[in-house]
Amino acid sequence: MNVVMKASLSLIVLLLCGLAQAQDPLGSWNEGPSKKAIVEFVKKVTDKNSKAFVPAKERIAVFDNDGTLWVEHPMYVQLSFALDRIKELAPQHPEWKTKQPFKAVLEGDMKALEALGEKGVAEIIMTTHAGMTTAEFDEIALKWITTARHPKFKVPYTQLVYQPMVELLEFLRSNDFRTFIVSGGGIEFMRPWAQKSYGIPPAQVVGSSIKLKYELRDGKPELLRLPEINFIDDKEGKPIGIQSHIGIRPIAAFGNSDGDYQMLEWTTAGTGLRLGMIVHHTDAKREYAYDRQTAFGKLDKALDAANSHGWVVINMQKDWKTIFKND
Amino acid sequence: MNVVMKASLSLIVLLLCGLAQAQDPLGSWNEGPSKKAIVEFVKKVTDKNSKAFVPAKERIAVFDNDGTLWVEHPMYVQLSFALDRIKELAPQHPEWKTKQPFKAVLEGDMKALEALGEKGVAEIIMTTHAGMTTAEFDEIALKWITTARHPKFKVPYTQLVYQPMVELLEFLRSNDFRTFIVSGGGIEFMRPWAQKSYGIPPAQVVGSSIKLKYELRDGKPELLRLPEINFIDDKEGKPIGIQSHIGIRPIAAFGNSDGDYQMLEWTTAGTGLRLGMIVHHTDAKREYAYDRQTAFGKLDKALDAANSHGWVVINMQKDWKTIFKND
Repeated sequence: MNVVMKASLSLIVLLLCGLAQAQDPLGSWNEGPSKKAIVEFVKKVTDKNSKAFVPAKERIAVFDNDGTLWVEHPMYVQLSFALDRIKELAPQHPEWKTKQPFKAVLEGDMKALEALGEKGVAEIIMTTHAGMTTAEFDEIALKWITTARHPKFKVPYTQLVYQPMVELLEFLRSNDFRTFIVSGGGIEFMRPWAQKSYGIPPAQVVGSSIKLKYELRDGKPELLRLPEINFIDDKEGKPIGIQSHIGIRPIAAFGNSDGDYQMLEWTTAGTGLRLGMIVHHTDAKREYAYDRQTAFGKLDKALDAANSHGWVVINMQKDWKTIFKND
Repeated sequence: MNVVMKASLSLIVLLLCGLAQAQDPLGSWNEGPSKKAIVEFVKKVTDKNSKAFVPAKERIAVFDNDGTLWVEHPMYVQLSFALDRIKELAPQHPEWKTKQPFKAVLEGDMKALEALGEKGVAEIIMTTHAGMTTAEFDEIALKWITTARHPKFKVPYTQLVYQPMVELLEFLRSNDFRTFIVSGGGIEFMRPWAQKSYGIPPAQVVGSSIKLKYELRDGKPELLRLPEINFIDDKEGKPIGIQSHIGIRPIAAFGNSDGDYQMLEWTTAGTGLRLGMIVHHTDAKREYAYDRQTAFGKLDKALDAANSHGWVVINMQKDWKTIFKND
């Protein structure tokens, strides 16, 4: 190598290093207390000379999905899926025209739907989520997610994933964290697209589930989805889901509603440095603004408890430069 | 760098390469059909130019534990733990002296124990595995595993892990497989030592479980272990446990008993190249010899079905150069 080549090479290396430094891994976060809390936490737990150092094996971070990683208004995405599915199946069920809760769904009668209560919702979920094999459901969910459009933003739901949270997931993983979804949503509804949207593989998705049955169909083994609840991964269920799937307590948890209260509590009650954060929907212009008064993603008790528990509240409107992945 | 230095360096590099080649990752396996099946399978699924190539994300391998990764005779290790635990707790329960199934345990009355049936075994398990927090149980299990000794080999059970299988686990991981335990044993009984013994982290242990309850004790959140079965990860339960925890079908499965039949069936029924293997206990001298006639690890139907399903039967006596990790 001659002198000119050597000099050129050094220059290229320097430029590349400079570029790498300039590229902020949390570029969609405005400077402020939320971004600072994340950066300082990660710095401390990954610094071998810090008292707060945590070995890579124990760097587990858990994320709620609806309202934390993607949009949950005007209703949970999975509920939209269920309602669309009822409409799709309706021609095979003429009796639904006069039978609740299906009648309300088919007529788009939101008032009647809201009045259905738990039993009606359960009936809609079981009708649309059970009675097929896991492979069939996987296909149904994936087909819907790639074709359905959000009523306000008119784009596929996977484009309504929050860019700052995607950056946070990647930032944590680049610091040897393992990232898990811990959601009240259906585990099999999230898995088909979580890898692509969040970089989270199926084994790192924890969610609610219905019972499965193993059986042979023409000699071919299948897992059949039964119309019976197996596990509800919400509220007190979240720490249980975490224990069952992950087996050790996370050191960081991210949620946005009272359904995440116990997950935040369980995570931040551990010894050593912990990070708990709440996404507060404060941006009516770019997304939605809601907290204490909403049917989807109610944030009330967790908001009150944030201060005393040291949970950092993310102000979407102030803290996020961009909201959506494809802004 | 002068010529002599350059030559020396080249020599060192050559030597190191030679050493690396000489170090067989499956050194405890004798040459034969079992070792060949493993090596050829891994070669094909990792070769981008092979029709059987599988992307790293889908390289999932599942392992039964008792009798597949470690010893299960004269009884399941976890049953030994439960019996020891009964003896340890006995001073606090004077009534056990006259009450079954505890009387049989305390008197070492194996005949009465064998006659207890499912109800008696369940009572022993619940008494010893429930009523404490997950953290407390973790400590109890870990303390026992480091102090208890196997009745025949007189060493800690963690020294009765099969060296060829540990090499297989490492060989698969070095080829970008993710390795999971899928065992009928208790998930929380295995997790405290699976990382050290097998290199498998808690999140990659799937097993049977009891129900948990989240509650605050003096303001501190705890997960309490309830005396109620949650999930039995055996037989038809294994594919369900796999789906619940891993979310995609494995491409390789390793078992040793009829309890692994459905796991092998589910794994090898997938499209593309698959590997199913059965550890056959044929070595009465170095370990134990048993199959169709045994209370622990009965291998009957799966042995009959191996040929037609293309499952490779590992002959411990012939195929394994060494049996135990610390031979």
